[in-house]
Amino acid sequence: IPMVVDINIGMDRTGVSPGRQALELARSIDGSEGLRLAGIMGYEGHVLTAWPNEDKRAQTVAALDGLLESRQLIEADGIPVGIVSGGGSGNHMFAAVLDGLTELQAGGACFMDPFYGELCHLEELGFEYALTILATVTSRPIPERVITDAGFKTLSAKEEWHAVVLGHEDFELVYLSAEHGVWLRSPDSAPVMIGEQLEIIPDYHDTTTFRHDKFIGLRDGVVETVIPLLARGRLQ
Amino acid sequence: IPMVVDINIGMDRTGVSPGRQALELARSIDGSEGLRLAGIMGYEGHVLTAWPNEDKRAQTVAALDGLLESRQLIEADGIPVGIVSGGGSGNHMFAAVLDGLTELQAGGACFMDPFYGELCHLEELGFEYALTILATVTSRPIPERVITDAGFKTLSAKEEWHAVVLGHEDFELVYLSAEHGVWLRSPDSAPVMIGEQLEIIPDYHDTTTFRHDKFIGLRDGVVETVIPLLARGRLQ
Repeated sequence: IPMVVDINIGMDRTGVSPGRQALELARSIDGSEGLRLAGIMGYEGHVLTAWPNEDKRAQTVAALDGLLESRQLIEADGIPVGIVSGGGSGNHMFAAVLDGLTELQAGGACFMDPFYGELCHLEELGFEYALTILATVTSRPIPERVITDAGFKTLSAKEEWHAVVLGHEDFELVYLSAEHGVWLRSPDSAPVMIGEQLEIIPDYHDTTTFRHDKFIGLRDGVVETVIPLLARGRLQ
Repeated sequence: IPMVVDINIGMDRTGVSPGRQALELARSIDGSEGLRLAGIMGYEGHVLTAWPNEDKRAQTVAALDGLLESRQLIEADGIPVGIVSGGGSGNHMFAAVLDGLTELQAGGACFMDPFYGELCHLEELGFEYALTILATVTSRPIPERVITDAGFKTLSAKEEWHAVVLGHEDFELVYLSAEHGVWLRSPDSAPVMIGEQLEIIPDYHDTTTFRHDKFIGLRDGVVETVIPLLARGRLQ
């Protein structure tokens, strides 16, 4: 059975410490009947929002150093290390060019969202937003307040960053309840009518996509494909 | 077509104002070909956590007054009001005994959770916790940190209140990422092993149940039924 050693390179979530701990685990795998060391992995999720860019580069290099040094240590011990996996969407530009990394874990930003675009500064690299939620205005009790049928079962919301309504960038999300989205806008903004459809860029795709059973793919406004989310809900 | 008028009784989400606005909408329905006023509804979600209990009672009565007075106004206008719907799980004990209410919207606490149990004080009424998530410890890199395979795709977490690990009430949830739950515990607590299963009471069922395809019903530790969540994901 091929095994990959998970190394904690600074995010403090899972993994053994780089260096001696990683070596010991690799040795233990290598010395076990039926097991084989396929490689090592880390994930430096804590550096994705570092800024300015030069800081992100330095923090990426520092974190992945723990991975690359562990590789040297294990290989110096006579155990070949195949896979060396690290990096994410938010820092792929710095991780991808590092000598010794064989696999990049980027993927979370494939559709882009305000977390990756704004907080991880991928907008500045020319990435565009590709995924939106279509919601309907179900109530507008006062001019400033717009209620949609997209609550937290449909969308998602972190308090640290924000979803965006296309064409109504002045909308501010107040809160999501199960089936309602409550937005505030200036009463002087362009009018919004009950029944109108709003196109919303979710603030973080990780917390939105798994709520749905399929993606509907459009090209130039025409539905081109429907992609079922086959793994959604496979939690058991 | 029977119609119910939604009245804003203080939560400031959806609905027309009590009194004149409600009456005008009821008249408009009554005077429209093919429409019929079936009743009125409100939801005083803003009073559920009021405390002490006497305050919750007073706030419930004050909010539902707006509903009951609207009913009188509409009926005095010659339009019969059938349904008068209000109240929720968190204040059902006060809403249910009000003269004039014909429907109670309680239901969210059918399984109980720390929001209803602690913040809405239903624990003190003898309600018990009936729904848990079974998670597996996948990593314990240092004695204080326990990582499970239940992240935000499985569980949910609000910052204002907390999920509970049965038998390990000292566990504090640090954060949920997509597939990981990160918990902190005292290093002196009872040991937890990798592979061990933890039973977690989610902090808020509204944000947890819709993530799953089925409920597994146990009685005395034996699986008695599997209930599919047929409406889950029916967002379109």
